[in-house]
Amino acid sequence: MEHLRRIVSTRMEYYLQNTLDHDAVSFKLISDYPSRPGKGIRPALCLAACGLVGGDPENAINTAATIEFLHNAFLIKDDLVDGSDYRRHDVTMNKKYGFELALNTGDALNVLAMTPLFDNMKELGLRKTLQIIREIHDMAAKSVEGQCLELNWIKSNRLDITPEDYYSMVERKTCWYTCITPCRTGAIIGARAIGTRDLESITKFARNMGLGFQIRDDILNLVASFESYGKEINGDVLEGKRTLILVHLLQNCSDAERTSIGTTLSKSRRKKTREEVDSIRRMMDTYGSIRESMRVARGFGMKARRILEVSSWARDQWWKEFFSGLTDYLIEREK
Amino acid sequence: MEHLRRIVSTRMEYYLQNTLDHDAVSFKLISDYPSRPGKGIRPALCLAACGLVGGDPENAINTAATIEFLHNAFLIKDDLVDGSDYRRHDVTMNKKYGFELALNTGDALNVLAMTPLFDNMKELGLRKTLQIIREIHDMAAKSVEGQCLELNWIKSNRLDITPEDYYSMVERKTCWYTCITPCRTGAIIGARAIGTRDLESITKFARNMGLGFQIRDDILNLVASFESYGKEINGDVLEGKRTLILVHLLQNCSDAERTSIGTTLSKSRRKKTREEVDSIRRMMDTYGSIRESMRVARGFGMKARRILEVSSWARDQWWKEFFSGLTDYLIEREK
Repeated sequence: MEHLRRIVSTRMEYYLQNTLDHDAVSFKLISDYPSRPGKGIRPALCLAACGLVGGDPENAINTAATIEFLHNAFLIKDDLVDGSDYRRHDVTMNKKYGFELALNTGDALNVLAMTPLFDNMKELGLRKTLQIIREIHDMAAKSVEGQCLELNWIKSNRLDITPEDYYSMVERKTCWYTCITPCRTGAIIGARAIGTRDLESITKFARNMGLGFQIRDDILNLVASFESYGKEINGDVLEGKRTLILVHLLQNCSDAERTSIGTTLSKSRRKKTREEVDSIRRMMDTYGSIRESMRVARGFGMKARRILEVSSWARDQWWKEFFSGLTDYLIEREK
Repeated sequence: MEHLRRIVSTRMEYYLQNTLDHDAVSFKLISDYPSRPGKGIRPALCLAACGLVGGDPENAINTAATIEFLHNAFLIKDDLVDGSDYRRHDVTMNKKYGFELALNTGDALNVLAMTPLFDNMKELGLRKTLQIIREIHDMAAKSVEGQCLELNWIKSNRLDITPEDYYSMVERKTCWYTCITPCRTGAIIGARAIGTRDLESITKFARNMGLGFQIRDDILNLVASFESYGKEINGDVLEGKRTLILVHLLQNCSDAERTSIGTTLSKSRRKKTREEVDSIRRMMDTYGSIRESMRVARGFGMKARRILEVSSWARDQWWKEFFSGLTDYLIEREK
């Protein structure tokens, strides 16, 4: 994984250096988030999916770079909207440079991100180049739907979210850009030709993987140490995010507790007291919400691995084992 | 022009209705700016350029819709960054719905904007479809460079900007997305095949038109009435924008006046007093900066019309006259 991350990093470095005019767009700013050490899950998935269907991962490097750039642009916006303080063990872009520069840098990265896709032409030809652009566009559409949905829940202080609502939101907000699109594009690039049914099966596989990943991420936000996680602990509670853990708590606590949680969640980030946040956090333990969510995450991981085992598109044994291990890692990771 | 605007509006309405899931992304929000009455310059230019080179403007409707969507997304972001209060005779999105919803709505419009380009396939085929996507991407890159450049000037309170600096910034910030890309894409769509030299000539034509347009816009920001302009008067001074008028003033006033202007400009929007803004505004009259800028704008208009007259790509007489009249309108308009 570290090896895959480095290959894509080198390509990203090239595009960071050579795309936009640095007299106008500060190189320091656009390369800030991309140069912070991330896990590199998304680009790894893209290259691995290319190998999995029997292709040469080399051909997927540009697309993987695009996905990682878009992820970085998204992180900048996300930190801005959430008013977060830390990201990848450093102060967020908005805290470091202010709102306007952060916003412009996010825009610049979004534009820069698309450039590698046009350079796919030589390796992939006209049709696949356009197909990949379309896939990336669909991913962006799903992501923005997921973000709007989540924001609407927070703004209207919804306390009646079901696990199914949550899965549907996370599918759009996380699964598409973290797992589904990396896998779909990797497979499209790697396979000579891939049918709709296989793409649907890959989508289902990656959806399960992504759901497991996001639930684990929600849990880490509560139980990890700042040192390993790189973001503030309990940040999701502060931001009022409807995680699976919170959904479980709201469905299992008493009416009085639900009212009290609702009051805390209705306050803005800065107005929530430490005590209020700790109280919600304690209830999550009392009602076993974290344990139950972890059980659900493992269930999604198992579903993903089962699809991988029985699917004919998973051709390459080496990459198959890589994917199986990665699924496990995404759900059991400590950071 | 009103006719062209309506054709594109209808197509935009279709994509607003049918692209994103309205349970997640509020239709009311994404259709807010697009439904406010704008001049529709950009889509009109795109259709007109298609006709000008001898093509059927019908084939450029999707691309024109894309450009107008991106313009609307840009306006939302621009109003957010500038902290503006009014846009197209109504309260800005950020004032109406707050920062987060405005930002998400801008993102949603940016994504939505690209959808019509994929539907170009049927009329334009694979190669031109990809070429148009690339043109739109180049436009986005130029725009973000221009925005960053302008923001840097404001942030570092630059008082030494020359007219040439200003033209180079406006070329990127305004000309590409307002004139150059609409004209280039229209011409690519309309012509059977168009050579690099013709595209360069079209670019030059549209650049002159765009420079004239932006200078006139800078002037209207100072002299128009709110009723016709739809934005707050003197907003550019409040935001510290380096307009050609300000550049002229800074190059012609006394050292003491320059220092005083610099002090005012260094303050944030909310901290500039009415008196300080009025003082700069009066100096612009004293030094003839508005009159001189208008002279320069007319010069750009003349250059544009001259290119139009001598160029073989300007084939269609009717559209040629339309363009000539439009160039005149953009520079002499009162709103």
